[in-house]
Amino acid sequence: MAETIVSAADALAARVGENMIAKSPVLQHWGIELVAISAGACEMCMTIRDDMSNLHRQCHGGVLFTMADGCFGFASNSYNERTVAASCDINFLKPAEVGDVVTARSVEVWKRGRSGLYDVTLTNQNGDKVAIMRAHSRKTTGNHIDQV
Amino acid sequence: MAETIVSAADALAARVGENMIAKSPVLQHWGIELVAISAGACEMCMTIRDDMSNLHRQCHGGVLFTMADGCFGFASNSYNERTVAASCDINFLKPAEVGDVVTARSVEVWKRGRSGLYDVTLTNQNGDKVAIMRAHSRKTTGNHIDQV
Amino acid sequence: MAETIVSAADALAARVGENMIAKSPVLQHWGIELVAISAGACEMCMTIRDDMSNLHRQCHGGVLFTMADGCFGFASNSYNERTVAASCDINFLKPAEVGDVVTARSVEVWKRGRSGLYDVTLTNQNGDKVAIMRAHSRKTTGNHIDQV
Amino acid sequence: MAETIVSAADALAARVGENMIAKSPVLQHWGIELVAISAGACEMCMTIRDDMSNLHRQCHGGVLFTMADGCFGFASNSYNERTVAASCDINFLKPAEVGDVVTARSVEVWKRGRSGLYDVTLTNQNGDKVAIMRAHSRKTTGNHIDQV
Repeated sequence: MAETIVSAADALAARVGENMIAKSPVLQHWGIELVAISAGACEMCMTIRDDMSNLHRQCHGGVLFTMADGCFGFASNSYNERTVAASCDINFLKPAEVGDVVTARSVEVWKRGRSGLYDVTLTNQNGDKVAIMRAHSRKTTGNHIDQV
Repeated sequence: MAETIVSAADALAARVGENMIAKSPVLQHWGIELVAISAGACEMCMTIRDDMSNLHRQCHGGVLFTMADGCFGFASNSYNERTVAASCDINFLKPAEVGDVVTARSVEVWKRGRSGLYDVTLTNQNGDKVAIMRAHSRKTTGNHIDQV
Repeated sequence: MAETIVSAADALAARVGENMIAKSPVLQHWGIELVAISAGACEMCMTIRDDMSNLHRQCHGGVLFTMADGCFGFASNSYNERTVAASCDINFLKPAEVGDVVTARSVEVWKRGRSGLYDVTLTNQNGDKVAIMRAHSRKTTGNHIDQV
Repeated sequence: MAETIVSAADALAARVGENMIAKSPVLQHWGIELVAISAGACEMCMTIRDDMSNLHRQCHGGVLFTMADGCFGFASNSYNERTVAASCDINFLKPAEVGDVVTARSVEVWKRGRSGLYDVTLTNQNGDKVAIMRAHSRKTTGNHIDQV
């Protein structure tokens, strides 16, 4: 039987991700699900609901940002070293409508010392870009899980 | 009896603000309250709750952004012309803890044609800056309320 | 003999690029050269000189920005429709020293109506990232060259 | 005779500013002059010349950025502790034409530990905003001048 080979770094990222999602009531409230996580990268998924929308049935920017920020935060924390967001620049490109399924993907652009830069792209079920974000993380102290 | 004199523009902004807050389930969910609104400016207030926080009892960045974005959006829509957020750049300066009372104030930096730039400052009950945001609005079509 | 096939859009971009570089005294002053241009993308090259540097022999941020902005501007104008920079966000990642050869590459991230978003990456001769920029272009009126 | 009272911090800033401008060939090349400097703030002045412009006789964005970045850099270095630019977000609001006199003013928005945030505003001789920039500084090591 073929086995999937997972690097130690990616296995650690997966454990950190499970730990983080369980402690994220804000992500849970909006139904933001962790789809995949590896060292420095993350993918999340969310379906736009009525209670996220304004009267035009378009998703509030705060909810889209919350998803992008979450996806970035999981990527930057995936090394099991605690990081926080220093700044986030988001561009809103296309409204997300109620019923749309939005996917967020974050990748690491640069990392050195205590700083990291990450790009997040939000796309809808048709592959249209909904928003893009560039974010700056700073390492603080502590870890998410115990490493044996 | 002394009467407060309110400009027509500020009176219109107040009516638009009341209309918008009633149609903002996301702001309502987080207990974000409209404190004041005038032409091009807005003030909002929020108390940090358990369900906004992570395990360190610090407010999730997505909730702080939602407040900043809301405060900016009310300021940019205050002329009763519909606008949307094109981009928002936020810097997180100090964590907001559970129980903190955060105030957001937005001011108009520049406005021409269909574009506007707004600065938002979030401070806690001690006057410490929690976050600052610079945001770019674009005018779309339509109005919020009927003007007689 | 094998011939290189060039799309009409890329051929137009090449003509626009030649026209623009000839009218760019600021790029010429800093020795910023156009290496390649195609529809929505551009590559430029620059060698860091003494007169670009401070006393630590590191390139001034204004010169690096000028290169990044130029590279973005050529990409966004490559369709022969005049565009201007609305905003540019740059991160400085590693100093460029006197003698370094810096390459800038811009790619189109998103384009719709009169707006476009472009990412520019500056790398040195070792492939290290020197700076990254995300820029927002707006189409104005007019063209760079006559199209038959 | 009335004497102007200058705080020790502002006197130090003035000495740092004089030292820095003498070692800034890029600012000198564009004729960017130091008008005033105090602890955390700076003002500079520049007249738009032919060699800064494109064929439309409008100032290249790279030159405006160089001025804004210089003004921010002098403000963030005014404490005689070396700082560098980590990131700069600039919005271009109105073209500067050949012959225009542009003034840049930077103020400190926030400072803690090794990080600082500064806002820079560029205005023309009519008081119109030409560009605004928000910049993030990081303290490195070393000083500009010897303090007795």
